[in-house]
Amino acid sequence: MDNTKMHKSLGIDLKAHDTLIRALPELFKECFLNKEQDLKSLSYFYSVVADIHGTRVKELIEHKNKGPVIGSFCIYVPEEIILAIGGQLVGLCAGADFWVPYGEQIVPKNLCPLIKAGIGAKFSKTCPYFQVIDLLIGENTCDGKKKAWEILSDMVEMYIMDMPNKKSNSGLKLWQEEVKSLCNFLEKKFSKPISFDSLLKAVQKVNAKRSALNRLYETRKNSPTPISGIDTLLVTQIGFYDDTERYTKMVETLAKECEEKALSNSKSNDKKRILVTGSPMVVPNWKVHHVIETSGADVVVEENCTGTRYFKDNVSIENSLAKEDLLKNISDRYIRNINCACFSPNTDREEEILKICKDYKVDGIVYASLSFCTTYMIEAEKIRKVAKKNNIPMITVESDYSFSDLGQLRTRIEAFIENL
Amino acid sequence: MDNTKMHKSLGIDLKAHDTLIRALPELFKECFLNKEQDLKSLSYFYSVVADIHGTRVKELIEHKNKGPVIGSFCIYVPEEIILAIGGQLVGLCAGADFWVPYGEQIVPKNLCPLIKAGIGAKFSKTCPYFQVIDLLIGENTCDGKKKAWEILSDMVEMYIMDMPNKKSNSGLKLWQEEVKSLCNFLEKKFSKPISFDSLLKAVQKVNAKRSALNRLYETRKNSPTPISGIDTLLVTQIGFYDDTERYTKMVETLAKECEEKALSNSKSNDKKRILVTGSPMVVPNWKVHHVIETSGADVVVEENCTGTRYFKDNVSIENSLAKEDLLKNISDRYIRNINCACFSPNTDREEEILKICKDYKVDGIVYASLSFCTTYMIEAEKIRKVAKKNNIPMITVESDYSFSDLGQLRTRIEAFIENL
Ligand code: SF4
Ligand code: SF4
Ligand code: SF4
Ligand code: SF4
Repeated sequence: MDNTKMHKSLGIDLKAHDTLIRALPELFKECFLNKEQDLKSLSYFYSVVADIHGTRVKELIEHKNKGPVIGSFCIYVPEEIILAIGGQLVGLCAGADFWVPYGEQIVPKNLCPLIKAGIGAKFSKTCPYFQVIDLLIGENTCDGKKKAWEILSDMVEMYIMDMPNKKSNSGLKLWQEEVKSLCNFLEKKFSKPISFDSLLKAVQKVNAKRSALNRLYETRKNSPTPISGIDTLLVTQIGFYDDTERYTKMVETLAKECEEKALSNSKSNDKKRILVTGSPMVVPNWKVHHVIETSGADVVVEENCTGTRYFKDNVSIENSLAKEDLLKNISDRYIRNINCACFSPNTDREEEILKICKDYKVDGIVYASLSFCTTYMIEAEKIRKVAKKNNIPMITVESDYSFSDLGQLRTRIEAFIENL
Repeated sequence: MDNTKMHKSLGIDLKAHDTLIRALPELFKECFLNKEQDLKSLSYFYSVVADIHGTRVKELIEHKNKGPVIGSFCIYVPEEIILAIGGQLVGLCAGADFWVPYGEQIVPKNLCPLIKAGIGAKFSKTCPYFQVIDLLIGENTCDGKKKAWEILSDMVEMYIMDMPNKKSNSGLKLWQEEVKSLCNFLEKKFSKPISFDSLLKAVQKVNAKRSALNRLYETRKNSPTPISGIDTLLVTQIGFYDDTERYTKMVETLAKECEEKALSNSKSNDKKRILVTGSPMVVPNWKVHHVIETSGADVVVEENCTGTRYFKDNVSIENSLAKEDLLKNISDRYIRNINCACFSPNTDREEEILKICKDYKVDGIVYASLSFCTTYMIEAEKIRKVAKKNNIPMITVESDYSFSDLGQLRTRIEAFIENL
């Protein structure tokens, strides 16, 4: 089946889709192909993006004969449970500026581009992933998303997980119940019970994926780092929609290559080492990394949801004898260890950032917030204070998906790097 | 004690305060004194505002010998518990544009003016109410507020009530716990146990205040309404910081006068009847009402937190034999009946608005959202759909505290009213 036929069968607006997809190769070339790059194992990840609306979409359509395809917009949605039901989880990327004007027809302009693009992707009928999913799982995290679900649920079947605002005892309990409810809901909806064994296997699969990413990021602690920030960002982004097992193997291979490269690398460089932190950066949002790394610095780590927050902790399987134990451990792993700014307070993030700065020998922090992402924007003030106290220079940038602020962004970031 | 001396003792920045307070009389004249108005009992409320940083502040300072003065920013904070501990609750108004630039020094510009003004009021040391309070009770409602508390708590002693995002069973339970915890916290902090009797008395006092406001609003169902929208808004706003018992009496007197006026009024008028709904409007934010009512229509009711949401339901005291029963009823009254857009879903608000439109014979809805108030802005889309289905015209306006958009606002609102 060629892509056009497949897209047509998914109800894609072919003309609009054409405009969307035509812009990608140039952007990809500018961000990835124009730079020096010698890691062989990256070619897999490059090819996945080059074929973004092709092979993987086809796989997902085929998968629908065996199990559901489920979409999500947040790393709090536990992939383990979706895998256990025989499903595939797709992080709906919503990183393209193309979708923003479509979204603005339904939701206010004063919203973060991720939400507007998410709504716009569905509304414009140009995202095959959105078209292929059987169900979208939303979560009550930030105001923008929790209210957007009310609008989006008129256009696509949704299930919403409630989230607490505080990691108190009542908050943890609420989330535990939500994880259980999701499990019950999916079992009923897709008429497939989740057994202890299937859940355990799913937990092991996702743990392996996270461990592989961990291994890859570990290599970035070397100076110089064997892999650029923008390449690592791409790899992590692909983890949101690729087949879990294949992806894990590919990341392992890449990590091994990076380890070897780091070992054989005798010369050091004097490039400044940058931590990027803030709102998520989803495909094809590579803007901030591109600017930093073409301004002479290396992004060596990301403390965000398309970085360490995605994989840094595994679900414990020790002493798990029943499905309930696993569900409890899953619930714990997500709520306790992901330091999303939607929580108040969110002080663990401060400590985490300091630890990362030490481990990765960071010279400066780029705090990158999406426009109108209230929670991360306000939390920048807290992080600024902590960074200052620990003598780590920090710059705050706020940006959307358009390229109109690229010049200004570059001026500010270059000046920041020069002063490090 | 003259005001200057008193303000100095509160640590007020006298020079900045002078600039703030100098603007008020003119605004007040423009909005209230320049229009026709024949209700004698309004003079009390006018005098309270005219003397806004005087007598009432003095009373609160004196009160501190007997009990605490506690501030809040949201109608979810239960006044009953504050009264029961012998305290006085002050809604910190934060409605003045003057404070916004001060707030913008600490929090992002992309925030609703209420939050920026709130932070700015404290930061600029120009709000005697902020200076007089012993404690500020915040709540995890919208993103802006829940994150702003983290910043504000470096400047003022705070206690935060957590809120659920959903009125599920777990959500209701979480809130019940929070109401109990607030009670325990205040008892310990101010070394004063809350007895069943003191709590019952407090519940009765606040119920009486709400009933008085209800009685006043009932009179607005008459055509023509005996009291203007802007005057009623002012009366309701004052309820947030005036002495509860005195205020209740004054509202009763006013309601009685309105009832008599409505009875004796034989002629009807053909002014269009407007429902205002959306974000709260706090002193001295009278902008939208002023524009509507000087454009030839009457605001006959407000479905917002400085309107019906503030008073429409009382705390039940039936079958309450112990403090725990009352706390449970308090918790229920707040969580179940206040339809804040921070909740998702918030469908009860749709029904409530339809009911109000019928009861008050509303010709059109002005949906007034503060700039960057994400939850109310997105929810406008839902309300628009419901209004359309029921053939009620609706206009959405988004505005901050500045007067720069006054012309544009007037043009849009006039056109809307003309077309009704
Ligand atoms: S930033 Fe928060 S809400 Fe957004 S994806 Fe990450 S965890 Fe989810
Ligand atoms: S980037 Fe910020 S505003 Fe946007 S969806 Fe994530 S948490 Fe919400
Ligand atoms: S709008 Fe919501 S958060 Fe704001 S005062 Fe009202 S109830 Fe509280
Ligand atoms: S007006 Fe809206 S954004 Fe502002 S504090 Fe209230 S709910 Fe939050």
